[in-house]
Amino acid sequence: MSLTVVGSIAYDAVKTPFGERERMLGGAATHFALAASFFDEVRVVGPVGDDFDPESWETLRTRGTVTDDVEHVPGGKTFFWKGEYDANVNSRETLVTDLNVFETFQPKLSEASTRSEVLFLANIQPELQLQVREACTGARWVAMDSMDLWINIAHEALLRVIRTVDCLILNDEELEMLTGRPTLAQAAQEILSWGPSAVVAKQGKYGAVLVTEDGFFALPAYPLQHVVDPTGAGDTFAGGFVGFVAAHRNEEPVSDDLLRRAMAYGTALASYNVEEFGTERVARLTADEVHARVEDLARMTSFNAEPAALRM
Amino acid sequence: MSLTVVGSIAYDAVKTPFGERERMLGGAATHFALAASFFDEVRVVGPVGDDFDPESWETLRTRGTVTDDVEHVPGGKTFFWKGEYDANVNSRETLVTDLNVFETFQPKLSEASTRSEVLFLANIQPELQLQVREACTGARWVAMDSMDLWINIAHEALLRVIRTVDCLILNDEELEMLTGRPTLAQAAQEILSWGPSAVVAKQGKYGAVLVTEDGFFALPAYPLQHVVDPTGAGDTFAGGFVGFVAAHRNEEPVSDDLLRRAMAYGTALASYNVEEFGTERVARLTADEVHARVEDLARMTSFNAEPAALRM
Repeated sequence: MSLTVVGSIAYDAVKTPFGERERMLGGAATHFALAASFFDEVRVVGPVGDDFDPESWETLRTRGTVTDDVEHVPGGKTFFWKGEYDANVNSRETLVTDLNVFETFQPKLSEASTRSEVLFLANIQPELQLQVREACTGARWVAMDSMDLWINIAHEALLRVIRTVDCLILNDEELEMLTGRPTLAQAAQEILSWGPSAVVAKQGKYGAVLVTEDGFFALPAYPLQHVVDPTGAGDTFAGGFVGFVAAHRNEEPVSDDLLRRAMAYGTALASYNVEEFGTERVARLTADEVHARVEDLARMTSFNAEPAALRM
Repeated sequence: MSLTVVGSIAYDAVKTPFGERERMLGGAATHFALAASFFDEVRVVGPVGDDFDPESWETLRTRGTVTDDVEHVPGGKTFFWKGEYDANVNSRETLVTDLNVFETFQPKLSEASTRSEVLFLANIQPELQLQVREACTGARWVAMDSMDLWINIAHEALLRVIRTVDCLILNDEELEMLTGRPTLAQAAQEILSWGPSAVVAKQGKYGAVLVTEDGFFALPAYPLQHVVDPTGAGDTFAGGFVGFVAAHRNEEPVSDDLLRRAMAYGTALASYNVEEFGTERVARLTADEVHARVEDLARMTSFNAEPAALRM
């Protein structure tokens, strides 16, 4: 079994109240692969330019990730993003977006990638997501991300992709924007009626919610003393979540119980991601550290629901 | 045993995308009492004017709440608040705040109220909270609320009250504002160092977090298809939470386990509060309905944390 991710590979320049980096490895596919590689062999599909350096190739290959389908575009430059976070690291301003080789990216999938049983469509143009989805004839479970930009300018194409996937992962405001529904419960229910059997609402520092036909599951973010750089947190979450599904799915459809466990691993991985800049923390993370936070999350969310005597 | 609450009793005019009410019973002490009365005998301390009508007295006395210490100020008018919520019912604009009898309110506590073992100081001026705290010589467990206004204009007085209570309940942004700390984890730790043994961060539609020396506990809000009117949700939560503690505390200090159960009851009660205007839903709520949502919350937050095999 293996897991294919299609998405951006980037260099990021990031400034937060706790420091800055002029040029560090980033991109949705990168963060996803670093997390998902704890669970399964990951194949990354995405373009890089001449400036993509040996250290970046090495980081991308952490825990055995296969980079055969990373396309080096001769004469091109790697996607570059520059942003700055506010004092509470809650919101950010994009200062530079140079698409570079990403502007004309046409995913080229090897046969091995199209045979992966699990596929993650990171946030790229919905038209490309649909092409990839159709090319990956071996995929049995597909998850996708998107963003407000595509909801606004490519709504119909986005709906077409959503109808073909098993799981939609979006920020909760984006779910409400996508459906025009005022509550997460209504938005998720509508999306389930379109085709996906699972919806994940990312809620930033508040955690994430999973909705399936079996109901709701909510998990808080892991409480941290310090958040240094939130860049890539959502993709790291997706990597842990989808990676867990890839390693453990042995039934169709994927059970609610399995997705809940996947949520815990995604949440634990994302919590490490934001403690340092870019890929720095997750690249050297250990299995024991991941397990420790999954167990902490279980302790932090359990309570005794035995009915109390109530007055009437 | 009984439970005393000191705070506002009000008439609210509220407009939300789902309807409006020109004049309905509200106020922090009212919402608190309606919820807390499921657990213990509640004594309400607060002022009302000549316009306070028989139906309001009756609602206030739901489930046996004692109104002996509700002060009728002759010639005065009851506190009036008018507000309007935006399309997603997430933020609101205050249109009118007529303090009326609340402007010169000096809490007058009967001996019975000062003997209550549990006390809730709803959001009023910190100086008044401190007076009440000192007058309530029988209080063994005290919780309090406050708001951004007092953090800004009465910071020192607010810190003095906080040092005397067992549990501080605030919105999470307010906790960060109060302490100047960038994360909830840091803010809560700082407040625990001031004296309280528990901090509750209210996170609106995302739920609430409890922090004690035993660690974190996070509970999502109950997912609702429709949110009609969030007014009083925080005070209803506090009523369920503090009421549960009042009914079940039989140890000093109050255990983390007991506070977690209290969080679940507060959350369940708050979820009913927002489904209709003002006090309408909680006034006719049944014990079975409350239990059903506490059990749902346990199901919505549980997962199998058994360690998965991870690749290195």
